[in-house]
Amino acid sequence: MMTTQPILLRDTWTDTAASDTFQAHNPATGQALNDRYPVSDMSTLRQLAQAAAEAARELENRPPEQIAGFLRTYADNIDTHREAIAQIAHTETALDHHPRLVNTEMDRTIDQLRQAADAVENRSWVCASIEPDLDLRSQYEPLGGGVLVMGPSNFPLAYNGIAGGDFAAAIAAGNPVIAKGHTLHPGTTRLLAEQALAASKTAGLPEGSVQMFYHCKPEDGLELIRMPEIVGVGFTGSRKAGLSLKKAADETGTPIYLELSSINPIFILPGACESRGEKIAGSIAESMLAASGQQCTSPGLLILPAGAAADGFINTLSTALTETEPKVMLSADGAEHLDESVRTVRDAGAKLLIGGKRVHPDARFEHTLLSIDAGDFLKKPEAFQREMFGTAALIVLCERSDQFDSIIETLEGNLTGSVYSQPEGEDAEPAQRLARLLRRRVGRLLHNEVPTGVSVRPSMVHGGPFPATGHPGFTAVGIPTAIHRFAARRCYDRADRRWLPEGLRDANPTGRMLRRIGGIWTTDDVGKASPKADQRSVSSSR
Amino acid sequence: MMTTQPILLRDTWTDTAASDTFQAHNPATGQALNDRYPVSDMSTLRQLAQAAAEAARELENRPPEQIAGFLRTYADNIDTHREAIAQIAHTETALDHHPRLVNTEMDRTIDQLRQAADAVENRSWVCASIEPDLDLRSQYEPLGGGVLVMGPSNFPLAYNGIAGGDFAAAIAAGNPVIAKGHTLHPGTTRLLAEQALAASKTAGLPEGSVQMFYHCKPEDGLELIRMPEIVGVGFTGSRKAGLSLKKAADETGTPIYLELSSINPIFILPGACESRGEKIAGSIAESMLAASGQQCTSPGLLILPAGAAADGFINTLSTALTETEPKVMLSADGAEHLDESVRTVRDAGAKLLIGGKRVHPDARFEHTLLSIDAGDFLKKPEAFQREMFGTAALIVLCERSDQFDSIIETLEGNLTGSVYSQPEGEDAEPAQRLARLLRRRVGRLLHNEVPTGVSVRPSMVHGGPFPATGHPGFTAVGIPTAIHRFAARRCYDRADRRWLPEGLRDANPTGRMLRRIGGIWTTDDVGKASPKADQRSVSSSR
Repeated sequence: MMTTQPILLRDTWTDTAASDTFQAHNPATGQALNDRYPVSDMSTLRQLAQAAAEAARELENRPPEQIAGFLRTYADNIDTHREAIAQIAHTETALDHHPRLVNTEMDRTIDQLRQAADAVENRSWVCASIEPDLDLRSQYEPLGGGVLVMGPSNFPLAYNGIAGGDFAAAIAAGNPVIAKGHTLHPGTTRLLAEQALAASKTAGLPEGSVQMFYHCKPEDGLELIRMPEIVGVGFTGSRKAGLSLKKAADETGTPIYLELSSINPIFILPGACESRGEKIAGSIAESMLAASGQQCTSPGLLILPAGAAADGFINTLSTALTETEPKVMLSADGAEHLDESVRTVRDAGAKLLIGGKRVHPDARFEHTLLSIDAGDFLKKPEAFQREMFGTAALIVLCERSDQFDSIIETLEGNLTGSVYSQPEGEDAEPAQRLARLLRRRVGRLLHNEVPTGVSVRPSMVHGGPFPATGHPGFTAVGIPTAIHRFAARRCYDRADRRWLPEGLRDANPTGRMLRRIGGIWTTDDVGKASPKADQRSVSSSR
Repeated sequence: MMTTQPILLRDTWTDTAASDTFQAHNPATGQALNDRYPVSDMSTLRQLAQAAAEAARELENRPPEQIAGFLRTYADNIDTHREAIAQIAHTETALDHHPRLVNTEMDRTIDQLRQAADAVENRSWVCASIEPDLDLRSQYEPLGGGVLVMGPSNFPLAYNGIAGGDFAAAIAAGNPVIAKGHTLHPGTTRLLAEQALAASKTAGLPEGSVQMFYHCKPEDGLELIRMPEIVGVGFTGSRKAGLSLKKAADETGTPIYLELSSINPIFILPGACESRGEKIAGSIAESMLAASGQQCTSPGLLILPAGAAADGFINTLSTALTETEPKVMLSADGAEHLDESVRTVRDAGAKLLIGGKRVHPDARFEHTLLSIDAGDFLKKPEAFQREMFGTAALIVLCERSDQFDSIIETLEGNLTGSVYSQPEGEDAEPAQRLARLLRRRVGRLLHNEVPTGVSVRPSMVHGGPFPATGHPGFTAVGIPTAIHRFAARRCYDRADRRWLPEGLRDANPTGRMLRRIGGIWTTDDVGKASPKADQRSVSSSR
């Protein structure tokens, strides 16, 4: 009989009570993989929460360098073990081993951890603000408990609960993390957690700063979120699961950050469609095919003017998609879910252009295109915005240019929106008008570009209005901004000097930390800051 | 027959459909005031929402100087009409005309608007971030619709839906505001709205940028919040009403910012209690008496060591409170509600020390103190954290020092928490320990100070964990930070230059706007920024 894998509880790989067990599968073969993992029960979740809450008290008083040290060591450890981690991730997810897993996603994961380490050392993310005359000092601080991070199926490394962007941001803000692995890749999560634990021990983080479990019953997950020891949640995954978690978190006023479904609309204007429709079709095909369309930024809605140019565009796109063999998806369930979604969009009235069927018995699905006239789309826009997670898109053909505007007005919140236009000529004015409308529906507005490929840089916004995310003011990618999600704003009003976090003391802790003193951003110590000509104070006298 | 007052809809004082009408009362006399105000029905609320959504499209493209001009003109207008406004506010609320209304609160209101104007012109609040090599540019932007602001009863000016901090922040972020007046002071709200409208016309803001209605059925308010035209909500008031609004906003993923109840615990350590207990009692009495305790930062829970020093403290505090005549409260309902709250805390087991009764037939209530042993408090801490909105506090007497810690662990989120301690000696170590525990339960941690008196300065945090507010990462006071509540984070990925908001273009729009270019905060134009020795980039190469 197979033994059940332990979970990471209080810095120890522990055999814990489980209500059930599960196995991962190799999606390429459909075979169950060897290891058996626990579906942790409520008593186990309570132990994790308790340990995280205890760790929080210690962690918030540790120097930033220690947390940065953990992040760097962890990044190095992953780098050292990249082959083994990529190998199991490939087995569990069928994503390409090379270059996707072993290079692209691995590099991104390592880089995110290092950027977070830089931000922790840099300290500017705390946005320290000091009014010396009132002795009033404020900054962003850890939330004061454990942060639960739940990663998605489709990025086993860069969004993994124990290694991805939410993990890096929550730890960078000084919070212990309880990571929930995704059931599709528990082995990958285990290898990462082993490296996280090793790094935590090397850095000397408090016991329980990084913990991991694999799975729990949905209702137990909701109860965990409602526990007072859990003070923040990060979730990337399906809209249905995300909204259920959001409801639980909202009841207890626990900040929750969601990254849910997105169909990433692309508007192609007449000039662009006519002058380079086929080239655009090629780019979009490549974007749709990346990771078999199993990306949150995959193009799922293409809006263009009906006519000969559209026919050429569709022709090129169809050919590019049908000429490429469908790859194995993350799971047979995923292929099944895509099948349902495509059927729903067809049932709503969309016409099937190519694909539309599962490739049995595999976890594969034919590359799929559907189309609909703008007039019909506008009759029931909600039905046609059903996410089809995979290489599948709905083409909307517009007879009139005002239909572009109308479609934007019906769009739900999305992570991205693209406009393809010719810089001059007939496209110029409508492109600007559409861009202004579209930007309110998305977190990232692109021009003449496909939405896949999220640069992990400070200016990135991987966010957007509900229901793409739970709050339009945040981003899941882009350090340091992403760190603010897991922080509380607190102030110290004439507090004893010994109570102050180092960043709020008179002396600049690094000599380089940017702080707002008397309304002026400066790297000076308190008492030495003087207004500079190039920075205007926003504090009026009172 | 009295006519019903019009509401401010689309820049016009309009007679609209109403499901009912109401009158304000002079709390000092109990007499209904002359004017009759509409309880707006759903069709009216829909018109307001529609107008706000239309205004949003215009407003987001207006230059910051125009919005700043509105805020300044409005501040000037209020200043010009301060006597008339303070007079009616006094009649409607019974708050002291002088100095409270005509000076303190009026000055604060005017100052908040001017600080918001400074921040709009300064532009740094948008936190512009640019990666020149990727042509990736992001900033905070208006939410893209109307913001609903609902002010409380207790600050008819500084938190008024049409003039207070939430209004200033929402407008500064470039959003149109629909203000809901409070039913206790509609006449004050009307005078302010008249000045807001005049300023909007002077500044040339789009029609519908500032709108105001007085009242609606609670269920209609929830429906308004769920409308897609409403993209943000600010609410200051009771926990019950706030949580009901939060539920509606959470369902549609609409950002909502709440400022609800707070009992503002004060911990007095043995050394402080013994050496200056009576002096501290005097300060707390003054703080409790301010505005008859009808302030969100009024002290409601006092924790100190049992013993002779505590007896002296209680004696002094009791004397100070009983020697002061109770003033008329904001409404008879408020006095009634305080009566209920005091009764609930007594029923839970607290001992009445002074006061505890309504002064009939007035809208007054005796200044009230209750006490409880720490052991009993800890048996049902929730019951003893019932807010008593008025001059009333519960004293908790600790037999053992560890009870201080235990009490903190049971505290709900609060706006403030105070620790009184002697800097050296027996208090020093426990004070630091308690301060570290307490800071996670509050937005503002004070030392040897009462919590009333919120400085309107950049470093202020008027916020805290749920249920004091809805999210611990924000503050309702403190510009520019408070503005972020009503903003979306958006990015432009290789966008046409003509689509960019001015703050994201290559040229620094003011020459002084602080932007993060390539990870470095600078006032340079894009292309001219170069890393400085004193600022470390947080962007790693990729």
